[in-house]
Amino acid sequence: MTLDDASLQKFGFIERPAKGLINIDPLQTGGILTEDARRALVEWGDGYSICDNCGGVLDLIKKPPVQEFVHNALPEFLGVDEARVTHGARESKFAVMHAVAQEGDTVVLDGLAHYSSVVAAQRARLEIRKVPHTERPDYYLDPEGYGTAIEETIAETGKAPALALLTYPDGNYGNLADAKKIASVCHEYDVPLLLNCAYSVGRMPVNAKELGVDFIAGSGHKSMASCGPIGVLGVNGDYAEEVFRKSPTNKNKEIELLGCTARSATLMTMIGSFPEVVKRTRNWDNEVADARWFSEKLENLGLIQMGQRPHNHDLMFFEAPNLYEISTKVKKGRYFLYKELKARNIHGIKAGLTKFFKLSTFGVGRENLSFIADSFDEIIQKYE
Amino acid sequence: MTLDDASLQKFGFIERPAKGLINIDPLQTGGILTEDARRALVEWGDGYSICDNCGGVLDLIKKPPVQEFVHNALPEFLGVDEARVTHGARESKFAVMHAVAQEGDTVVLDGLAHYSSVVAAQRARLEIRKVPHTERPDYYLDPEGYGTAIEETIAETGKAPALALLTYPDGNYGNLADAKKIASVCHEYDVPLLLNCAYSVGRMPVNAKELGVDFIAGSGHKSMASCGPIGVLGVNGDYAEEVFRKSPTNKNKEIELLGCTARSATLMTMIGSFPEVVKRTRNWDNEVADARWFSEKLENLGLIQMGQRPHNHDLMFFEAPNLYEISTKVKKGRYFLYKELKARNIHGIKAGLTKFFKLSTFGVGRENLSFIADSFDEIIQKYE
Repeated sequence: MTLDDASLQKFGFIERPAKGLINIDPLQTGGILTEDARRALVEWGDGYSICDNCGGVLDLIKKPPVQEFVHNALPEFLGVDEARVTHGARESKFAVMHAVAQEGDTVVLDGLAHYSSVVAAQRARLEIRKVPHTERPDYYLDPEGYGTAIEETIAETGKAPALALLTYPDGNYGNLADAKKIASVCHEYDVPLLLNCAYSVGRMPVNAKELGVDFIAGSGHKSMASCGPIGVLGVNGDYAEEVFRKSPTNKNKEIELLGCTARSATLMTMIGSFPEVVKRTRNWDNEVADARWFSEKLENLGLIQMGQRPHNHDLMFFEAPNLYEISTKVKKGRYFLYKELKARNIHGIKAGLTKFFKLSTFGVGRENLSFIADSFDEIIQKYE
Repeated sequence: MTLDDASLQKFGFIERPAKGLINIDPLQTGGILTEDARRALVEWGDGYSICDNCGGVLDLIKKPPVQEFVHNALPEFLGVDEARVTHGARESKFAVMHAVAQEGDTVVLDGLAHYSSVVAAQRARLEIRKVPHTERPDYYLDPEGYGTAIEETIAETGKAPALALLTYPDGNYGNLADAKKIASVCHEYDVPLLLNCAYSVGRMPVNAKELGVDFIAGSGHKSMASCGPIGVLGVNGDYAEEVFRKSPTNKNKEIELLGCTARSATLMTMIGSFPEVVKRTRNWDNEVADARWFSEKLENLGLIQMGQRPHNHDLMFFEAPNLYEISTKVKKGRYFLYKELKARNIHGIKAGLTKFFKLSTFGVGRENLSFIADSFDEIIQKYE
């Protein structure tokens, strides 16, 4: 590619194709900016804007109130002793794994762990042992499975796992496992537990201390109404010293964070949305009620919701044998559902999926959910 | 901190204190968004917006043209075989160090390396050997110093360094060392060279192949008119396979990038600014002329520019014995300069500095530079 005027024209400002659509992609529902965040985005958009008044440590900046946010508000919100912002939940997980484990150690993951937990462990050069879950339709994770995985690790390697991780909820079925019980099982073996809360922190109340977990990872772009990439990391007890250890040569720089992480607009949108994000977690019961209501609507149309029932989270996985059946017959094949939904301004179910798909009802509201359910009804009737 | 309404009011939208000022902070001059990037920021501000049409690999997204940008435009721009976006130059450096070196290996850094190169090496658990430079006023880096450092490493550890790194230019004096010669010295020992171009890629023409370097790290927020945090990483030759190796379990996810990195608004502002960024690198001679012109102006006022003379970069370090002298006598002490400049809408020399400071003339333009020089003149006359 020659970088001449013609080829450069491909870049510059580009419109977002999915703008203005009702978005039920689980990746998107919790990341929509609040009005304050949208203003912050423009205000702090320039490169390194937040560093105007930095004395060398990002999280100690007083103006804007980064210090107050990172050292007071976030720990309270997450229920931890120490918190930091990171580039995302996956970067939080890697930082913990890299800090508390040595190459060759084992990390225990729930069988439904997000791929980024697996890849973070591989980057940290750790062995992975997965805790099994039941199969369809529940995908239930037995807390005692952690005890078994830990004991097997000890038996095979002579050493306890360096860390255990639970995805809370998992990103496929939206199942919330018994984190408190799992923490207690892990602690029987002195194995610390990291809770991957990419789909919970910022949507629902989560308190690391109440659950007894040692580390908590959250995602700003997934669930805290922030411009990505940004995440949070909370640490309890003595582990903070390990994870946030400072450089021996550059005394105020934390090694695992490479000195500093999320800056400028990403952080300022998180701070911008924070008041509303805190408040919306208090509305969680209504969000769960919406999810259950919507699930029932779709089940009445012949779809089947997998995972916990009644469901406890806005992220839901459906099997749709009737939509699949249609896809085998219609002209557009497996893309018919995506196209029919798009024609109704609904986005978020991956193009090409009909038999199995996930979606999220978070913040969508009864009116739009009702419209989406009616749309499914229409589409099914149209082709049946 | 209780997260009640009163304490939550500390957050939400916050104004940028330095808004509208003439900013000569070297961190800031290259990161100011272009008009297209400012529109992209608003368009793509929501959390994970770019993932609307992602098939599982960020850099293969076709709409918006991420694939075209990452796989065609960026490699051409950087002069590399393979490129990726990262969270920043430091994250690019860590990815390379972590991929090509084993714990305990040595990395050779220029003595003026940015702290983030040191911390990245510490995170990767590498030994650091620094190439010395001359002292004041030149801070000259002799390319042969790399050969000496490599030979010393081999003599002491029995193993060649896994990597060498050159900061191009360094972040204190804005010196551009002889990268081509250093690459050739390193290659005599089969040691690959990483060029840290946080202050060059996006400001001036840099081509990794022409310089013969193996890796190149750039910074979007520092020098590519992008909303931070975002960076670029370019890799030449067989090293790409190592650095961008894929997960054995999740076949399309690159381990060192944890699957994916900079997303949404950060990436879309980089793409938004790219045409102008490419074009502005062609204007580099004029930027250098501005820097030299400004340097001469300040030297006529009794300040002394350190580093290469005539200077070849907009980032410059000054010694100001006269300003320091004033600071020892005036009431506001060492803060007088910051306050006097602020009163004239000039920002970017760190509060409290008078004796030594750095600044950048990039994109500031003759008119503003002239105003800044006149302001220094006024301030000196006022107190002398």
